[in-house]
Amino acid sequence: MVGVTEQEKIWTAALLVIGDEILSGRTQDKNIAQVAMWLNEQGIRLAEVRVVPDQTDRIADSVNALRASHDYLFTTGGIGPTHDDITVDAMAAAFGVPVVIHSEARRILENYYLNRPGGLTDARLRMARVPEGAELIRNPYSGAPGIRMGNVFILAGVPNIAASMLEGLTGRLKGGRPIVSVTIGARAAESDVADLLRETEAAHPGVAIGSYPFFSEGRHGANFVIRSEDGELARLTGTELSLRLREAGYEPVQGGI
Amino acid sequence: MVGVTEQEKIWTAALLVIGDEILSGRTQDKNIAQVAMWLNEQGIRLAEVRVVPDQTDRIADSVNALRASHDYLFTTGGIGPTHDDITVDAMAAAFGVPVVIHSEARRILENYYLNRPGGLTDARLRMARVPEGAELIRNPYSGAPGIRMGNVFILAGVPNIAASMLEGLTGRLKGGRPIVSVTIGARAAESDVADLLRETEAAHPGVAIGSYPFFSEGRHGANFVIRSEDGELARLTGTELSLRLREAGYEPVQGGI
Repeated sequence: MVGVTEQEKIWTAALLVIGDEILSGRTQDKNIAQVAMWLNEQGIRLAEVRVVPDQTDRIADSVNALRASHDYLFTTGGIGPTHDDITVDAMAAAFGVPVVIHSEARRILENYYLNRPGGLTDARLRMARVPEGAELIRNPYSGAPGIRMGNVFILAGVPNIAASMLEGLTGRLKGGRPIVSVTIGARAAESDVADLLRETEAAHPGVAIGSYPFFSEGRHGANFVIRSEDGELARLTGTELSLRLREAGYEPVQGGI
Repeated sequence: MVGVTEQEKIWTAALLVIGDEILSGRTQDKNIAQVAMWLNEQGIRLAEVRVVPDQTDRIADSVNALRASHDYLFTTGGIGPTHDDITVDAMAAAFGVPVVIHSEARRILENYYLNRPGGLTDARLRMARVPEGAELIRNPYSGAPGIRMGNVFILAGVPNIAASMLEGLTGRLKGGRPIVSVTIGARAAESDVADLLRETEAAHPGVAIGSYPFFSEGRHGANFVIRSEDGELARLTGTELSLRLREAGYEPVQGGI
């Protein structure tokens, strides 16, 4: 067996989406795609997502399963000021530590609400609660910070606040090589080019080709996404796939349709 | 302990979203919300979602975990004609049965491709493969059927094809009482009404109130979603919450903002 260097290691993350509003269908999740794209830029692969309801035991169990099986765990949702925001309590239960008021978080909130009506109420002070031992993730957008607890990163559920917290973490997590993806589209029914796709993938170990069909303007089409940690290999495979599609009578569209 | 009748039982389902395209962030998932809303109409609660990559063992492990812990398991993705469509193989592995060609699925596909260019190619015939013992879920949209295997329902990943398969299942699954939800919106920062929300929820056992903040047109606002299996109770709680909001100086908006 050959030793794996840090460069070669595949870094993985899981995402735990917390919220009844996602499971009821009321809210269309936008954090999965956003966290996935951001992780990819950090050279970290999103390997698993779970969505659980606002229930302490369900959250805690998932946290403990996922933080053990991945390099990183991100969570979204449940860190606001209302009674249904129980992520911090569930996280503390998962880690077996008490919930405490984080003094720096308290200062940030005091400052943020200084000239706002009502000031720092008890409800707002809830947003300074953290599992004992946690660090803060800065959030320039709305004051209330995210929370880091070991390899777990606790983000807000509102997508633009989550984005602001991710921005604060950019470049600060250890990762490997980002995955490069090249997309080729064609007005082909994917079943007509299935052999061609399989053969192209088989001829280039280290790439994965995904096929994503659509039907628009009365015609079938598909986008073929070539993904690899080796950018040169991804581009080369893209060029060859384009060539093969053209030979088969389909005009390839660089970047997809 | 009082016996639980079928009417009182809470029916739950899990959803397994299968696909590298979701985990890479390339595709924004639309099936979670769609399946959630459909299940709710059937009186079944979506209790958990997982997203896994196109890897046989990861799919099979999740299938076995989720089908055991819920009344129903739905999956989306990976049942097309290309090499990256491996859901059927993973499902067969999970159930410990071989993959076979389903004779009725074959007939459906033969008929569908009868007057289409190329006819029923080997790649298209892949879509007639099922785990041994499976039944079909009709799909008027594109011919290729979904698959039912015990309490597992295998749907397409393309949202409108998944919708068509769900339509075919409407009213055919055992469920309980649908959850009724009532939404009240207000131009209030949720931290200002946190106590009011907690008290209203506590005063009405059997309801859950979720608070979903937003910021638009330069002002804070939030929608409060009251959910209950008891429709009358949900409406009553909505009326009371509106009253309390008005008393606190916020004009409630029925149906949310």
